[in-house]
Amino acid sequence: MTAFTSAAIEADPKLPIIRITRDFAATPQQLLRAHTDPDLFARWCGPDSGTVRIEHWDARTGGSWRYTHVTDGDEYGFRGTFHDVRPDRIVQTFTFEGQPDGVALETLTFEDLGDGRTRLHAQSLVDSFEGRDMWLRSGMETGVNEGYAKLDALLSDVTA
Amino acid sequence: MTAFTSAAIEADPKLPIIRITRDFAATPQQLLRAHTDPDLFARWCGPDSGTVRIEHWDARTGGSWRYTHVTDGDEYGFRGTFHDVRPDRIVQTFTFEGQPDGVALETLTFEDLGDGRTRLHAQSLVDSFEGRDMWLRSGMETGVNEGYAKLDALLSDVTA
Repeated sequence: MTAFTSAAIEADPKLPIIRITRDFAATPQQLLRAHTDPDLFARWCGPDSGTVRIEHWDARTGGSWRYTHVTDGDEYGFRGTFHDVRPDRIVQTFTFEGQPDGVALETLTFEDLGDGRTRLHAQSLVDSFEGRDMWLRSGMETGVNEGYAKLDALLSDVTA
Repeated sequence: MTAFTSAAIEADPKLPIIRITRDFAATPQQLLRAHTDPDLFARWCGPDSGTVRIEHWDARTGGSWRYTHVTDGDEYGFRGTFHDVRPDRIVQTFTFEGQPDGVALETLTFEDLGDGRTRLHAQSLVDSFEGRDMWLRSGMETGVNEGYAKLDALLSDVTA
């Protein structure tokens, strides 16, 4: 049996934005490191039914990234740039290479709740409601929730 | 007397987007080069009342950029990343350093009209209507139109 906290995944009623909110038993520094260290990131990102292979990773303001999600022998590429890497937030672009013209602007904010707990706010902005709603129908919540459950499990190993 | 073509600057009624459309007597290749060659870019970008100093420039997919606009002794910094640099389009992030939390996702598309003419479509996406409307009220059309008039003038020098 798998037991974990679900993330809140919400579509903004007036903007082409998806917002995800999730609490973690970790400091903002630990969460930042889990999102910027490529070896850690590859251990938790995405659904249980696959693995992440980092192709390129330069997690600093002005850097870029690329990884491949491998599942059942199929490979799916994702890539983007790091617009901002700060202690309190990451702003990055995101493209699924199967749809190379689609681009999301993602903002991750680490809200310190005290007592070693942090609320992660992840905002994904695209340029149409159709594109946004396609992501919501894609089964993304499985990847989000299984990924964050893996992140829960490894945070005790993350020093920051 | 200055005579030049005005750009169409439009606010989307339902999305937090500004769209700019402007025709040029140039090929898509020349326009791409005018947006990616730092020496050329510095010669035309922005209003007549200032100069552009390139601080960093790596105009390839996954690269980044930073420049300072100098006017009347005041300096204004701008920076971002290049998510995509392709023959038909550039996708980049854009931040005015005076408002470091604000980020726009800009998409420039070069539509070949034939006969050495190209229509530039520039789309700027932000995460709120308030932020979008603040840009529209900032006097941006002066910088856009004066900049594109300078670009008109130098395109005959641009080989591609």
